[in-house]
Amino acid sequence: MQKTIAFQGIRGAYSEQACREKMPDCLHVPCKTFEDIFQQVEDGLVDWGMLPVENSVAGVVSDSYDLLARHNLFIVGEHYQRVRHCLLGIRGARLEQIRTVYSHPQALAQCHAFIRQQGWERQAAYDTAGAAADLLQRGNPTEAALASALCAELYQLDILGQDVQDSPLNTTRFLLIARDKAQPSPDLPCKTSLLFEVRNIPAALYKCLGGFATNGINLTRLESRPIPGRHWSYHFYLDFQGHPDDTDCQLAMEEISFFTDSLKILGCYQEASNQME
Amino acid sequence: MQKTIAFQGIRGAYSEQACREKMPDCLHVPCKTFEDIFQQVEDGLVDWGMLPVENSVAGVVSDSYDLLARHNLFIVGEHYQRVRHCLLGIRGARLEQIRTVYSHPQALAQCHAFIRQQGWERQAAYDTAGAAADLLQRGNPTEAALASALCAELYQLDILGQDVQDSPLNTTRFLLIARDKAQPSPDLPCKTSLLFEVRNIPAALYKCLGGFATNGINLTRLESRPIPGRHWSYHFYLDFQGHPDDTDCQLAMEEISFFTDSLKILGCYQEASNQME
Repeated sequence: MQKTIAFQGIRGAYSEQACREKMPDCLHVPCKTFEDIFQQVEDGLVDWGMLPVENSVAGVVSDSYDLLARHNLFIVGEHYQRVRHCLLGIRGARLEQIRTVYSHPQALAQCHAFIRQQGWERQAAYDTAGAAADLLQRGNPTEAALASALCAELYQLDILGQDVQDSPLNTTRFLLIARDKAQPSPDLPCKTSLLFEVRNIPAALYKCLGGFATNGINLTRLESRPIPGRHWSYHFYLDFQGHPDDTDCQLAMEEISFFTDSLKILGCYQEASNQME
Repeated sequence: MQKTIAFQGIRGAYSEQACREKMPDCLHVPCKTFEDIFQQVEDGLVDWGMLPVENSVAGVVSDSYDLLARHNLFIVGEHYQRVRHCLLGIRGARLEQIRTVYSHPQALAQCHAFIRQQGWERQAAYDTAGAAADLLQRGNPTEAALASALCAELYQLDILGQDVQDSPLNTTRFLLIARDKAQPSPDLPCKTSLLFEVRNIPAALYKCLGGFATNGINLTRLESRPIPGRHWSYHFYLDFQGHPDDTDCQLAMEEISFFTDSLKILGCYQEASNQME
């Protein structure tokens, strides 16, 4: 049976592009919200969820981390996806005809220099893929959308420009989530993600990091997030290189447990290469 | 002469509401981009800039931190602003007439439960205040906008609903920036913000935090940010309670300087209370 993966957005969203690159043989299931992704995975309706967590559009990072804290799913993989905005027009439209460009405000902002140079009017859309879908509906050759290359294919649009974003280094980190833990091969580099809350003691965060420092474990990410509904309390998300069953990692985990009120392994998974390199 | 403060957005943006609460006697100057705020302050065209840095809409956090790294301005204050979305309609419109609601996608998402309950159609706008301004232009009693209470006043709209966001705890932290350092009173609690890049040595971050731990200095924020254009290199933003001239802070600063390739004091300023408490 074909495996399934849920993503947030409509067909052609950057999250679907990530699914296509990371999981090309899967069926991609669009979801309205991040919460829906978690629900679908929890209920066994899909095998995996594709969750953007870093350097992406509109607040998704915080939503995703908060949902990881609330639900009991595991991180089983990671994927770095370049965000490459294309300028899309209806079939046969020419660049010099364009007068108005539609997209999510964040995408419009990321292509600010390009749009200003062309002197076009900007119009907001609910999401990038929606802007592309609406373009097909209206069939107006003076209108364009900023969206993924995948949208050109799905909505029968022409690509009038590629990589029109101001910064060439726009990348989103995605996490792959599932009901069961991954079993990453011990022969390949792997990463472990933790969620913890420090005890109310002086220098608590420093003490939490001590075990990793003294055991030579490399941290790749440390993120603090306010705990929803509890002011001035913070969760920490920490990624380190290694497997919690390694001896040095076990020592570090034992040490961090002394200084935390809660400590949860969100997952251990094979490390992905960042395409930007 | 009246003092001036620049904010990003059009009149009625949540950033202007922050200016009004923190700097009620100032003239508020709208800017198109965050970059423009920095430019206006640098060129001496305004006295201050009001910059959102945390827990706010659409990627502003990263933009703001990157601009703080690139420019030579100082943080001279902080302000916590509750984000309270109002449902606005044209004068005389009634709630039961509304069919469509306009706003920035992030605001629409934050009021998801409310909009779904009402069964309204959602329409994206470039920003919240723009949605309100357009409402006045169109004068259609079946349309509403999600925006600040200030927009009702500026665009002669009626408030049909208050605090319609799903989460009651939506707060944005703003930083006040200026050309010259602040001189916070030593009698009041103050905060210092640092920007640093760790040396390429094992456990560098842990070592950087050591001086703060052993000198009993409380960290209120630690944020890692990729350095634009340099992959896998991170800047750290750190806020601590205290003044760099205090003896214990001087010891911590001396210690962190051993383990960093660059270290910059972004500012020292009076600590603000978080209104959410």
